[in-house]
Amino acid sequence: MNILLKNMQVLLPEGDRDVIKQTDVYISGNRIAAVGEAPAGFKAEKTIDGTDKLAIPGLINCHTHSYMSFMRNVADDLSFMDWLFGTIDPIEQQMTDEDAYWGAMLAITEMIKSGTTCFNDMQMNIMQTTRAVKETGIRACICRGLVGHGNDEAGSTRLAQAFKEADAFKDCDRLHFLLGPHAPYTCDGDFMRIVSDEAKKHGMRIHVHLSESLSEIEGVKKDYGCSPIEMAERYGLFDVPCIAAHCVQIDDNDISILKKHNVSVATNPASNMKLGNGFAPVKKLLDAGVNVCLGTDGAASNNSLNMFHELSLLTLIHKGTGKTPQCVSAREGIRIATVNGARALGLENEIGTIEAGKKADIAILDLNNPSLVPQNNLIAALSYSANGSEVDTVIIDGNIVMEGRTLTTVDESLVYSKVNDIIRRMGLDKKEY
Amino acid sequence: MNILLKNMQVLLPEGDRDVIKQTDVYISGNRIAAVGEAPAGFKAEKTIDGTDKLAIPGLINCHTHSYMSFMRNVADDLSFMDWLFGTIDPIEQQMTDEDAYWGAMLAITEMIKSGTTCFNDMQMNIMQTTRAVKETGIRACICRGLVGHGNDEAGSTRLAQAFKEADAFKDCDRLHFLLGPHAPYTCDGDFMRIVSDEAKKHGMRIHVHLSESLSEIEGVKKDYGCSPIEMAERYGLFDVPCIAAHCVQIDDNDISILKKHNVSVATNPASNMKLGNGFAPVKKLLDAGVNVCLGTDGAASNNSLNMFHELSLLTLIHKGTGKTPQCVSAREGIRIATVNGARALGLENEIGTIEAGKKADIAILDLNNPSLVPQNNLIAALSYSANGSEVDTVIIDGNIVMEGRTLTTVDESLVYSKVNDIIRRMGLDKKEY
Repeated sequence: MNILLKNMQVLLPEGDRDVIKQTDVYISGNRIAAVGEAPAGFKAEKTIDGTDKLAIPGLINCHTHSYMSFMRNVADDLSFMDWLFGTIDPIEQQMTDEDAYWGAMLAITEMIKSGTTCFNDMQMNIMQTTRAVKETGIRACICRGLVGHGNDEAGSTRLAQAFKEADAFKDCDRLHFLLGPHAPYTCDGDFMRIVSDEAKKHGMRIHVHLSESLSEIEGVKKDYGCSPIEMAERYGLFDVPCIAAHCVQIDDNDISILKKHNVSVATNPASNMKLGNGFAPVKKLLDAGVNVCLGTDGAASNNSLNMFHELSLLTLIHKGTGKTPQCVSAREGIRIATVNGARALGLENEIGTIEAGKKADIAILDLNNPSLVPQNNLIAALSYSANGSEVDTVIIDGNIVMEGRTLTTVDESLVYSKVNDIIRRMGLDKKEY
Repeated sequence: MNILLKNMQVLLPEGDRDVIKQTDVYISGNRIAAVGEAPAGFKAEKTIDGTDKLAIPGLINCHTHSYMSFMRNVADDLSFMDWLFGTIDPIEQQMTDEDAYWGAMLAITEMIKSGTTCFNDMQMNIMQTTRAVKETGIRACICRGLVGHGNDEAGSTRLAQAFKEADAFKDCDRLHFLLGPHAPYTCDGDFMRIVSDEAKKHGMRIHVHLSESLSEIEGVKKDYGCSPIEMAERYGLFDVPCIAAHCVQIDDNDISILKKHNVSVATNPASNMKLGNGFAPVKKLLDAGVNVCLGTDGAASNNSLNMFHELSLLTLIHKGTGKTPQCVSAREGIRIATVNGARALGLENEIGTIEAGKKADIAILDLNNPSLVPQNNLIAALSYSANGSEVDTVIIDGNIVMEGRTLTTVDESLVYSKVNDIIRRMGLDKKEY
């Protein structure tokens, strides 16, 4: 379909910064045909009036676990290892395929409604997530979370399964496939090497959790005599393009390793605070030239998949820890949540900015919301005052997936009812919290 | 009017904690008549169906500057003193009465739409704020921000004016009057003593900024040889009930002084981070038994007046600084944002909980929002996943001021257009941000 965003304020790249200009955006099929001047012969089949609207590139959530959304708010105020092994793991043991599907549907519903158009997912059940992605029209990079030790049977089976599942992606160009060795406390070095070799062989990216908790650091130190970043380097994870989620507990040497190998760091401020892991050294990473992108993590440890909330945290907390109001500006924040995410996923030529030739992944905010009034410094507004509910219309791959806050591809009430059913079946609604 | 909240999940106090129960709430006139059993002869004139709804006490914003909302996003990424004296002050010099009114109207619009039913305001223009409060139906505690040195004419004039303005309050029992010596860097000790004596004489509370920035600490140290908390104690501010906003830069001795005098501390996480002042020691304050309440500060330094955003920050950041996921739980957070606020304002018998006999100040959330699904641990949801836009209906003083997200007392589009006009008149829309 040909869509015209007419006389709208639009966040546009200008060199290495963003500016907001009043202009027209022309969408043809799944791509942005032009910004400003109409392409020859363009006839709009649908026109969206730009009055009091702001168009931004869809936000890119670079680290999440979408199926976990059905576990939102089930495990709070627990230490990281108690949270993961004491609470989340036992719930995952009971999880059916349908549970994973409805969890992913809830995640995608929340993401679209808060302006996210692409997410990078580490998964237990790839088939169900791809099903949800295909139905809803969102864009996703997906990997199976791999756990393994050397060439043990469990690890090898999961790796083979991950490749088999990748077949499900072939008929949908909104889906991309990564390999996901889970973390240094669930994969040993030899298994990391196996995964890395496979990634190299197939030209794939790696998505991994690194340096999240102090107990992880201590464990790796004990077993390998080094940091998780050094371990990942040693066993080849950085020999292919890699997205390392968290990187909270890292030192200057770790940062120089990340930079040397062009590793992208997906920072997850809410999850890192909530699990008591602290604050990633985002300012140092940016100063070192590391590509920092932003993720929400899963709804069991955030407990929100709203990237506007995450952007607000990103641009506030480092001013607090650094005791300087200039640290991680609104301008840097919006780049981290868009362009840097695209770069991390190897999709920088496809998404992340509103530019002719890129895929049409756009979130349109309604400026007639108190949080976005007055209309002055709208880049600051995106970080410091928006809450995500101002997103009115979302276009992904040229398709309108939300208009006037109504989703066009999801039956919201069905999603809510199905997820509430899962919680009741598992008795989690009766749990003493 | 008699209003019945029928078969609704309700956040209720049970001893010193909160629980959520499915029940009925009966409202008669401006008070809650009963919870659970219908009062004799109760006839509902309006019934709100409780299906998939959660009623909570209206949130209490214990420190803000409502008129500043027209300055939202005008001064970001600046040091505290540059922000205040270099940017905000010059704008305030151009501010007319009408500007102050529309600023307050925007603030109240944002607060009601995010579930706040009472706010504690430090003001430049009391007459315009009271006008906005009266028209919109919200509840407020208001003080003029007093600046003075000894018994200089400027200070004495402002103090006399503050009392004269208090007359505007007499015909509205939703309005309460405090005295507001601005801060140690704008009031000297002798002026603090004068204000304190007046407060004592008239049985009034004090609202003051204390220990916000490092430069404030250094200034007080230089001039008085002590901390701002010690200075406030020395000059009598704590001889009357006092709400001290910020208290970021405080030590154990300061905390024991705050506790000794039953000073309430209004913590403002977003503003403290945004201006690079850091993190208040909330855990230590709670452990010492200090009454901690929550505020957004003004929209020029937050830049949001959404208490759900602030509650989320409150319950996340101290887990990060303390590196423990048990620090400031969701349960503590919701108390801080409700009951503790009521206590700070001396209104604990009137507002802060949903109980028979209290004023009917209630926010009703629509649970059919992705952020509140599944319906399991809804107390956690309020802190960790809600963004404020789930607030569907708001009752203040027994009046429905918002229903289905439509405000009944405010013309929203008029507010937005008037505020945008102010920004254009001042040239702030053309400023290079």
